[in-house]
Amino acid sequence: MSVSRRQFLAGAGVSVASATAGAVVASAATKKANHSVGDGSLSAAGVGANDAQVPFDGAHQAGITTAQQDHYQCMAFDVVTDSREKLRSLLEVWTSMARRMTEGKEAVEGGAVDVDGVVVPSDTGDAFDLPPSRLTITIGFGPSLFDDRFGLAAQRPAELVDLPHFSGDQKVEEISGGDIMLQACADDPQVVFHAIRVLKKAGSGVVRTRWTQLGYGRTSSTSTAQETPRNLFGFKDGTNNLKVEDEALVNEHVWVQDGPAWFDGGSYMITRKIRMLIENWDRQILHDQEETFGRYKGSGAPLGREDEFDELPLTETVDGEPVVPLVSHSRLANPQENNGARMLRRGYNYIDGLSSFGEMSAGLMFVAFVASPSRDFIPVQRRLSKGDKLNEYVRYESSSIFACPKGVSGDGDYWGKAMFTAS
Amino acid sequence: MSVSRRQFLAGAGVSVASATAGAVVASAATKKANHSVGDGSLSAAGVGANDAQVPFDGAHQAGITTAQQDHYQCMAFDVVTDSREKLRSLLEVWTSMARRMTEGKEAVEGGAVDVDGVVVPSDTGDAFDLPPSRLTITIGFGPSLFDDRFGLAAQRPAELVDLPHFSGDQKVEEISGGDIMLQACADDPQVVFHAIRVLKKAGSGVVRTRWTQLGYGRTSSTSTAQETPRNLFGFKDGTNNLKVEDEALVNEHVWVQDGPAWFDGGSYMITRKIRMLIENWDRQILHDQEETFGRYKGSGAPLGREDEFDELPLTETVDGEPVVPLVSHSRLANPQENNGARMLRRGYNYIDGLSSFGEMSAGLMFVAFVASPSRDFIPVQRRLSKGDKLNEYVRYESSSIFACPKGVSGDGDYWGKAMFTAS
Repeated sequence: MSVSRRQFLAGAGVSVASATAGAVVASAATKKANHSVGDGSLSAAGVGANDAQVPFDGAHQAGITTAQQDHYQCMAFDVVTDSREKLRSLLEVWTSMARRMTEGKEAVEGGAVDVDGVVVPSDTGDAFDLPPSRLTITIGFGPSLFDDRFGLAAQRPAELVDLPHFSGDQKVEEISGGDIMLQACADDPQVVFHAIRVLKKAGSGVVRTRWTQLGYGRTSSTSTAQETPRNLFGFKDGTNNLKVEDEALVNEHVWVQDGPAWFDGGSYMITRKIRMLIENWDRQILHDQEETFGRYKGSGAPLGREDEFDELPLTETVDGEPVVPLVSHSRLANPQENNGARMLRRGYNYIDGLSSFGEMSAGLMFVAFVASPSRDFIPVQRRLSKGDKLNEYVRYESSSIFACPKGVSGDGDYWGKAMFTAS
Repeated sequence: MSVSRRQFLAGAGVSVASATAGAVVASAATKKANHSVGDGSLSAAGVGANDAQVPFDGAHQAGITTAQQDHYQCMAFDVVTDSREKLRSLLEVWTSMARRMTEGKEAVEGGAVDVDGVVVPSDTGDAFDLPPSRLTITIGFGPSLFDDRFGLAAQRPAELVDLPHFSGDQKVEEISGGDIMLQACADDPQVVFHAIRVLKKAGSGVVRTRWTQLGYGRTSSTSTAQETPRNLFGFKDGTNNLKVEDEALVNEHVWVQDGPAWFDGGSYMITRKIRMLIENWDRQILHDQEETFGRYKGSGAPLGREDEFDELPLTETVDGEPVVPLVSHSRLANPQENNGARMLRRGYNYIDGLSSFGEMSAGLMFVAFVASPSRDFIPVQRRLSKGDKLNEYVRYESSSIFACPKGVSGDGDYWGKAMFTAS
């Protein structure tokens, strides 16, 4: 064991720096320091691979164009205080904690605060010893935050309104919406859950959890360096997704350019929980599955083509029938058929356990980032909701939109500061 | 893209080997072949680390003393047929599928069967492209399987009876018990879920799912090569766990030596879902948390000691008070205090989402393997259930026991064969 590790939460046995309520216990070496002390064990050997760190500060928030990580949890909150200052202060505290955690540190220095001589853990400790694991924490603000409670109405971005009802939506209000959304992504599920848990705890008295969703195994690639993964229907998913290497397209379709100042360089986050009726799907024959997607299951190539990345032969016919069926998912979602609409998808599989009928309650937590919902998302989803053959096998259970502000510029800045300053 | 990949499920576009109902489509290259074709992408680079394979056949089943993997799903089934032969046949089919999947292959060759010229996927495809990821699949039989339905009553191991009620248990029948238990563990959650899903599908008409549980982030180490992980209370968990390197202890406390012949070399699997009231716990001061465990949170060392692996100073006192409190978890669970009882713990964290009160529905899926429940588990749990200070923060929600047969000896053998042959 390294000495540094024993200094985490060492306040109980070591001198405490200050007896002032709320003062930070100054005993701790950071996790980073600890990581430099390899001890040759399996776990330490694994740290190298998982030790990568995604910068927290920048023009844009991390967790949007970051090459997609393997694990996900989001949590939506409603603000329960009437105090604008308490809300502002929480965002400042959250920003500091989030930055530290993405650096692989405890959420507050030492992991605990000293309250009148009593050591109270601020960091729950379950991710201590674990490397940064490419953790990103991304915040979004829901339409409801811009009502008259906090004087923010004038700062509401024009397109930040609840998504319309799409044909077939079976939206459950309890798992939709919210004043604030936190998204944590990392390559280690324990690092993800820890981050959300610590921020939830810190929000006590100011926000109340509205809903949460965990996910794993990205269902899209956000970088050309990543292979296209398969969804729970067994098909490659997101072949035509926007890739962060397409800088011009990302600037046009992901980053907001015409929002209020705090939102320039931000993005709209759209989340929809899509239950997949996998037992029904698994009983279909291969031909029907492939006609539903418009692609081959094995290779992911468009029907009538050989390579996954071949263009869809949208105009080709065989015996008078389109090679790619008119109701197939890949045709209906294709940019060529949607006036060039593009979105950056960043979804995850979820498995919530068993339904009351003994089927798996599983599916896709759809997450997408767009510069303009009215151009890049709503028309596409409207089209899919009416014509997509895949709808026979899915249920849309939630639907939410959030405005993710631009990035934080450094230590003096925090999530939403520009929004509060401007109003 | 490699050519081999396009041959998976290529039956739709390629000649089909046989038009006999149920015949296997012979088109597919296996996933293994595919893995040898590295294409230099991020994903392919990652394959090396995840490509390790745990042998399926052997004297003991894999997934017990296998160094614990990162992800877990178990599924308990009730048999719905009256036919002994259908049950026996399913176990034979399951064994073949399980062996193939642990080798990184589709569950059946080619991933599909040809039914009168129509290609029907047998493998759901969601783990195609993914390496073996140290997948293990372990089967257990519940006490209820040995009633008079299948002529197996004489084969029931003496200790295979429902666990007693422990003080404070709030057992939910719907998530306890079952005729058959399948446990899948791997380092990739998609590989875990795929395995369970495919076996569930293959069991249709013979078994019905009773309950399932997913988990991640092992809460114990089963090998001295693994570092001790932290549980959701932020403490190192399982420091004193049996390690597979202690061969004599494993032979004594894990492998059954006196069961019916099919069970010699098997093990009892005990599963208990332990909800952890993490929000309550997170409000406790550090001192109380450490007295509850009897260990320091940072280092994991026993109170009054410096190193995680130091022995608990069970007889030491300071000012007349025991250094390790009498009600602390680590004291009450210690082998010295339990007539040398030992178990191989193999538990996982679980997070099921939010409770109806907005708290996290999270905790520990406790899994342990023992040679004798009456010696190695029941007395220890009885003691903990009455005295452990940790009980203030946990709820025992399920309680199950299964007999995991000895290992499968090769292609002609299958799970439970010796049990059917003997009866």
